[in-house]
Amino acid sequence: MELFYAYDADGRTCRLDAEESGHCCRVLRHRSGNEIHVIDGLGTMYRCRLTDDSPKGAEAEVLETFPGWGGHPYRLTVACCPTKNNDRFEWFVEKATEIGVDRIVPTIGERSERKVYKTDRADRIALSATKQSLKARIPEIAVPVTVKEFIRQADSDCLKLIAYCFEGDTKRISIQEALQDYDGNDITVLIGPEGDFSPEEARLALEYGYIPVHLGASRLRTETAAVLAATAVYLRYE
Amino acid sequence: MELFYAYDADGRTCRLDAEESGHCCRVLRHRSGNEIHVIDGLGTMYRCRLTDDSPKGAEAEVLETFPGWGGHPYRLTVACCPTKNNDRFEWFVEKATEIGVDRIVPTIGERSERKVYKTDRADRIALSATKQSLKARIPEIAVPVTVKEFIRQADSDCLKLIAYCFEGDTKRISIQEALQDYDGNDITVLIGPEGDFSPEEARLALEYGYIPVHLGASRLRTETAAVLAATAVYLRYE
Repeated sequence: MELFYAYDADGRTCRLDAEESGHCCRVLRHRSGNEIHVIDGLGTMYRCRLTDDSPKGAEAEVLETFPGWGGHPYRLTVACCPTKNNDRFEWFVEKATEIGVDRIVPTIGERSERKVYKTDRADRIALSATKQSLKARIPEIAVPVTVKEFIRQADSDCLKLIAYCFEGDTKRISIQEALQDYDGNDITVLIGPEGDFSPEEARLALEYGYIPVHLGASRLRTETAAVLAATAVYLRYE
Repeated sequence: MELFYAYDADGRTCRLDAEESGHCCRVLRHRSGNEIHVIDGLGTMYRCRLTDDSPKGAEAEVLETFPGWGGHPYRLTVACCPTKNNDRFEWFVEKATEIGVDRIVPTIGERSERKVYKTDRADRIALSATKQSLKARIPEIAVPVTVKEFIRQADSDCLKLIAYCFEGDTKRISIQEALQDYDGNDITVLIGPEGDFSPEEARLALEYGYIPVHLGASRLRTETAAVLAATAVYLRYE
């Protein structure tokens, strides 16, 4: 099943941008009258009939609407510090999208080696992983913020978890335990940079109600920890 | 903490091959008398003193022995069909090694697009991921076999799981459910190729005692499914 992304979908008509139109009408040779499946990136999939097969700007008429198509029963934000090697962070974006994530926030830590992150490639990866894994909602790739800004922004109602090895007597529970103890479905997980959080960042997280969790005995790379955290949430709501 | 791999470790002396010796003595400039940490790839880590700092073939004397260092409380074999794109399978090898796997078996399915797989790159990735994630045991990358051969070989005592969407009334449980119902710690998971298993392969698996499991609602790529299965096992024994 091939999905196309409509930048504009009003419930009756879906409009594809030049890239999607070219893929639909030039590469895959769809012609007016053909049935295609289109997502709006916001959670709805449309069964459509192609009415304009222009490879510059195709249009399709909606035949059937599937709201919440390919969705998941939780709302997950993963805030993760971009890795030195961009491929590793982008791999996390692809895998988290396949598994099921709602929002990815590139956070810059005081000890991050990468202080600047451009989200355009991640946006494209999230879109293609969304289509490939048959989902209708594209996870939001947020504008990068510092770890401290992100902690201060986080809304108070959700379950907030931070994967960090706190010194001293700060007790940590496993991420599964934290998830089992929580009966809501709105979760934020904060994953540190390769150089880990600074003690100030960690203290601030505790102040703002973050629960310190561990991800088990293995020593994981940043991007592996982020995908493992997303997987733990996904499995929790299965 | 930097680990070096000894191709030969008799409990008193560790010998490094040319590549590891060059990294230890040329790149990192370790000299005779320096203390280094060496793994034998079989599960033991040694604290050593370098006695020969030759970048062609370094030797170190064992000061302290740590058996089962960085190990995990289960034995996991993941049999997975290599992906068209080699990077994706190699990414699975790296991530499964970080998380904790004992044996990776590249299996060739009747519907596999990739019929041949060379394991040399995967061997190198498994070694570097083992050192990077501070483990002493390098997962075995087995010689590729066909899916049917693998199914016929699998030993009868372990929990055998196959991720496959069976037609008709073959009931599937979630992988977590299957793991919770099992009180042992020896697990084999079989993950299909991009073209999925053939019905004959699936039937043979059932015949040989494989339990059909699903990995949740998301549609995952082959390598993502393989890593998610390894993660489910890892989290189960936390």
